[in-house]
Amino acid sequence: MASKAFSQLANRIEPPAISWLMQEALSRPNLISLAAGFTDNTALPVEETREAFQELFSSDPDSRTALQYGSTAGNTELRKLTAERLQHLDEGNDDQETYHPDQVILTHGSQQMLYLLTEILVDPGDIILCEDPTYFVYLGALKSHGGEFRCVPMDEQGMEPDALRHRLQELHQDELLDRVKMLYLVTYYQNPAGITTTVERKKKLLEVLREFEDKAEHPIYLVEDAAYRELRFEGPEIPSALVHKEFADRILYVGTYSKPFATGIRVGFGRLPRQVRDLALMVKANHDFGTSHLLQQLLVRALRNGSYANHVDRLRNHYQEKAGVMLTAMEKEFPASLKWRKPCGGLSLWAWGPTSLDTSGTSALFQSAMDREVLFVPGSLCYAPDETRALPNHEMRLSFGAASKANIEEGIHRLGKALHEIL
Amino acid sequence: MASKAFSQLANRIEPPAISWLMQEALSRPNLISLAAGFTDNTALPVEETREAFQELFSSDPDSRTALQYGSTAGNTELRKLTAERLQHLDEGNDDQETYHPDQVILTHGSQQMLYLLTEILVDPGDIILCEDPTYFVYLGALKSHGGEFRCVPMDEQGMEPDALRHRLQELHQDELLDRVKMLYLVTYYQNPAGITTTVERKKKLLEVLREFEDKAEHPIYLVEDAAYRELRFEGPEIPSALVHKEFADRILYVGTYSKPFATGIRVGFGRLPRQVRDLALMVKANHDFGTSHLLQQLLVRALRNGSYANHVDRLRNHYQEKAGVMLTAMEKEFPASLKWRKPCGGLSLWAWGPTSLDTSGTSALFQSAMDREVLFVPGSLCYAPDETRALPNHEMRLSFGAASKANIEEGIHRLGKALHEIL
Repeated sequence: MASKAFSQLANRIEPPAISWLMQEALSRPNLISLAAGFTDNTALPVEETREAFQELFSSDPDSRTALQYGSTAGNTELRKLTAERLQHLDEGNDDQETYHPDQVILTHGSQQMLYLLTEILVDPGDIILCEDPTYFVYLGALKSHGGEFRCVPMDEQGMEPDALRHRLQELHQDELLDRVKMLYLVTYYQNPAGITTTVERKKKLLEVLREFEDKAEHPIYLVEDAAYRELRFEGPEIPSALVHKEFADRILYVGTYSKPFATGIRVGFGRLPRQVRDLALMVKANHDFGTSHLLQQLLVRALRNGSYANHVDRLRNHYQEKAGVMLTAMEKEFPASLKWRKPCGGLSLWAWGPTSLDTSGTSALFQSAMDREVLFVPGSLCYAPDETRALPNHEMRLSFGAASKANIEEGIHRLGKALHEIL
Repeated sequence: MASKAFSQLANRIEPPAISWLMQEALSRPNLISLAAGFTDNTALPVEETREAFQELFSSDPDSRTALQYGSTAGNTELRKLTAERLQHLDEGNDDQETYHPDQVILTHGSQQMLYLLTEILVDPGDIILCEDPTYFVYLGALKSHGGEFRCVPMDEQGMEPDALRHRLQELHQDELLDRVKMLYLVTYYQNPAGITTTVERKKKLLEVLREFEDKAEHPIYLVEDAAYRELRFEGPEIPSALVHKEFADRILYVGTYSKPFATGIRVGFGRLPRQVRDLALMVKANHDFGTSHLLQQLLVRALRNGSYANHVDRLRNHYQEKAGVMLTAMEKEFPASLKWRKPCGGLSLWAWGPTSLDTSGTSALFQSAMDREVLFVPGSLCYAPDETRALPNHEMRLSFGAASKANIEEGIHRLGKALHEIL
């Protein structure tokens, strides 16, 4: 009886695929979690936040402004700083229109920006093209809106353009092209696979999308999720898709200040073409009238006085060290048949065994790891549902973000024992 | 071409009805706005926030906790404080289940809680029963989800139960009862009409809803929006609908810390029955993984050290004085044919002329007021669309929240001149 009281969205919604993992982690105090996507508690910007607060509250008018409603789009100065920062990172595109502060909306974390885009773009039965594997947490929002998925394989440069074209051709043959609403890419240190999409690859993918727009009879947007962009610790700065300015009206760029600064300060952003921006702004007004002004004003101070930049630099070194600890331990402890991708940024790495290895939540390996009190994310949880391909289940995501160096070493030691036992 | 890229929600969404009002206010620096729903800048808790921050950041572990992700439902202590506070205000219901902290979800302002409930309950064509007039800002979220409205008149005790029953009977005859999802009430110092619903009236309305549930074949929820509850400056504390504990599983109580403390600190909450809570929690996880932990922790300190309670006391006196200034000026400046409801709380009051008076945005009165640089909210903007009744347009909402006492006096003086000119 009750379900008739609820909406279609409520009837579609499911607990996140990893909620049982989180439950396990909470119920076992001695468990070492290499599953959590949290940032490192010891590396949070306590002094930087204190300084930003004192600076803000040393002025009576400024502190009052911070305690009052802001605008729905977000604080003018933070939007300006965000646009400038983005243009600076994207050296090479001097088009002022692409990086105009009016194109920026500030949100309660980048997750809220992704949610707004989902609401604007996705109706039940609409199709999302995504990487295989993909950022599984965003799948919850997409699924609750009735989104369906077509997954496209990656190589070391990012999603494969020929494979994307093939997918779109199939959809055209099935007369489903009009249902394709977005290509979703996690372009920096992709969660979970750890691949960074090259700037050339971004252009090729945009070109493929454009090939099919006439047949789709509407724009197909690229959502570039750059959540981990600032957590780079190896390799050069890679420009975003926005440097391909002829495609700027198709690029929905999503970034965040939470991960590189403090996850308790929930501020993310989107850089959107005008029409999408106008729609996102109206939905955002319905959500919450705008992001907490106090949080935005704290970030303005931290960005202006340089403590944000200093903190990000320290963070990069910190996570590089922790990734190094994990890699060294894996070399020592893991069987030779295990392979992994060396991370160049982010908070986790991707490892895989022979295809005969089963890493799923019901596998003997997972059980053996749990018996040894170590938790990882089974790779099979990181894939969007797509019946047109078999679900790989010989991979795992291992996080070095939240765990201490000692726990990383001990966790890998335990996991190595479990792997040796199974293989 | 573009609209086919977007969802049904995007195609339904409209700029808020009062966005042109806000534009006018911004473009005329000398305009006195008696339209804005903002709180008073001079009454914001600068010292209280500074104190809360210093207290929080005097402990290294506490400040780290505040800078890290919290849980989706919100901080355990703030949920406990919220539940206790609510039970304390609702003297008389000692049912621990009704006020269990697990029933509380913390959100980015109460607007986000209302949005989550909209997503959970409303599909296109579903019907919302609401007061006539109603809180027009929430209509935007409801309309974007395709909600339709049936408005029910109020008397001085709140919505009229017989009129509600009549509406539900009509809907039953039209075989639309299964589409009725919620009764939306703003129960304290209703925005805009200024009416407070009595506790007896709440019970009668809940009983009427229950009469029709069998025929609707699903629960019909009461959304009690108590946004202004703490801004009471006259009359006794009125318990919420939750004191009628036999109906607690139908009551979605929505409150906020933003309006009584600082609107820049966006923290609101809902007290929900279990099944609704579970659904809201899953949607909230998709929105943003939970409300900014820093904001929640600041509120915990302000609630614990008593500065929140002291601030609310001062605020009540402050708004009572400002309401008094407005009332005195209206007595002096307004024509005798103008009537109004004396406010007992909140940030605005409701005034009306003879039915021959036209207060709409295209009226001679509105134009004359604009020429004199004073802005009010035309009453006709405060009504939900409902073709089954004529839209009243002889009323206005006048805010004493944001304007200074001098501007309230001068604004009423100017508006009085405009009224004398027209009437």
